[in-house]
Amino acid sequence: MDKRILILGGNGFIGSHLTEALAATGARVRVLDRFGSLRADPVHGVDYRYADFVDIAAVAESLADIDLVIHLISTTVPGTANLDPVGDIEGNLTGTVRLLQQMRDAGVSRLLFLSSGGTVYGNTRTVPIPEDHRLNPLSSYGIVKVAIEHYIAMFGALFGFRPLVLRVSNPYGPRQSHLGVQGVISTFFQRILDGDPIRIWGDGAAVRDYLYVSDLVSFIVEAVRHDLTGTFNIGSGHGASVNDILTVVSEVTGTAPVVQYLPARGFDVKNVVLDIAKARNALHWVPQVSLHTGCERYWHWLNRSPR
Amino acid sequence: MDKRILILGGNGFIGSHLTEALAATGARVRVLDRFGSLRADPVHGVDYRYADFVDIAAVAESLADIDLVIHLISTTVPGTANLDPVGDIEGNLTGTVRLLQQMRDAGVSRLLFLSSGGTVYGNTRTVPIPEDHRLNPLSSYGIVKVAIEHYIAMFGALFGFRPLVLRVSNPYGPRQSHLGVQGVISTFFQRILDGDPIRIWGDGAAVRDYLYVSDLVSFIVEAVRHDLTGTFNIGSGHGASVNDILTVVSEVTGTAPVVQYLPARGFDVKNVVLDIAKARNALHWVPQVSLHTGCERYWHWLNRSPR
Repeated sequence: MDKRILILGGNGFIGSHLTEALAATGARVRVLDRFGSLRADPVHGVDYRYADFVDIAAVAESLADIDLVIHLISTTVPGTANLDPVGDIEGNLTGTVRLLQQMRDAGVSRLLFLSSGGTVYGNTRTVPIPEDHRLNPLSSYGIVKVAIEHYIAMFGALFGFRPLVLRVSNPYGPRQSHLGVQGVISTFFQRILDGDPIRIWGDGAAVRDYLYVSDLVSFIVEAVRHDLTGTFNIGSGHGASVNDILTVVSEVTGTAPVVQYLPARGFDVKNVVLDIAKARNALHWVPQVSLHTGCERYWHWLNRSPR
Repeated sequence: MDKRILILGGNGFIGSHLTEALAATGARVRVLDRFGSLRADPVHGVDYRYADFVDIAAVAESLADIDLVIHLISTTVPGTANLDPVGDIEGNLTGTVRLLQQMRDAGVSRLLFLSSGGTVYGNTRTVPIPEDHRLNPLSSYGIVKVAIEHYIAMFGALFGFRPLVLRVSNPYGPRQSHLGVQGVISTFFQRILDGDPIRIWGDGAAVRDYLYVSDLVSFIVEAVRHDLTGTFNIGSGHGASVNDILTVVSEVTGTAPVVQYLPARGFDVKNVVLDIAKARNALHWVPQVSLHTGCERYWHWLNRSPR
């Protein structure tokens, strides 16, 4: 497609997959990231730039001749943002509001922002959760995502921005960090590979909506192609408990993991399964990769990746 | 009452009335503010301290031996916060999260926070608006208030805070600033006193819920007395359009104001009337001062106050 796209955080877990997929469509892709990817090779023809996204001059230069900004940067993760909420606000919220101001000044009105389907709704009695459900985040990570969504809507109303906000559930897949902070699936597999016991906060009954990264990327590519705007839940539409994940991980690896159950954390949401009907209807998009298949692919990648 | 209360912003418009009222109950009141009040005399027996509330050392000293913090500080107003959203975030949101952390560290768990009934809900079709209505702020001022409410709830869940959040409608009354940014009523009266034309953004049909300051203060005093917790709308429960205010102002002053109608601002909410049933039921509280009587009192005060 004939679009000029800036991907902020294009060397991260999701970003590296998306950079490959968008470049493959013929789009002209520029990546702004702090570092190169440790897990993916650079993509031929992509314009890589290295800077922090709070570097105003670097962002201004990166916005030149851009049609669409895809904002994937988060300086925190759900499990740790509460430890430093001021840092969470300063890094993510202030940084994103400055980005919106710079986009306005540069005349770039198209923005795709990755919000968090797993944290913005908080604990709900509604399963699955539709997009118009009230937002009641319990963690700093979710609070900041909600505030960013509100600022994006405000810039839309005041300055004609045409934003697309994706409330993504728990994405997983190759290249995801396995440092114990970014996702249950990658962490479980890594600990099995290392021969370490698996730690579970709470009783393992907490239900999440796990989405394989290629299904997320396929939605984004079609959304960019069709200039989609609005707010969409992006998930598998199916729930899996932590104990379900444990079962799949056990099947895929052929091991019986040793599990340590730890006290539940107050800021963890209990159950999240997203209603993805709006996304399905907008782009005839259907997630393709089952949890079992996705886990097999992750395990395969993990065993081939450098340690 | 036998309570030790810290009022942040105790020399402001609402704060000065509240300081007088709480001191009169026998509570031990400490005020932290940047400046003394230009419009009220110091209250005998109150411990006045002067510092910015982002001054961590000054806040820490002020929290010593305190049972309850009443947080009235806002570094911005609804009409101007959009001009500098980063400053709004840094001043109000980051400042308040730091305050919450300091309260946690000092073992002070009781907090009363003044949120904004006029901006947190955004444009709604529901009249009057109950507290469980979804939050959809359109301005930076409202976005930051919502984020602060979320952080207060998070500190409540994680650290046992017992907060009271008051979503106050448009308060007005003596000592309110008449610089054209803090309220329609004070601004209209001041411009008539100065012989200036009155400016209205939009067609004057926008409906607000105006609450006389003594009615707000009487609710807060009873809430403090009863250790009330939760989230409450505090308003008159009645709507008045800007044009209604113009009529009352004309009656009270005995003049026919000259009006300039200016283009509507995109971030102004169209109609806000708060459902105050929850507040009524919690404390048998009923607003006492009608719009006409409140405006008479304001006009009387304005004509006697130093220019």
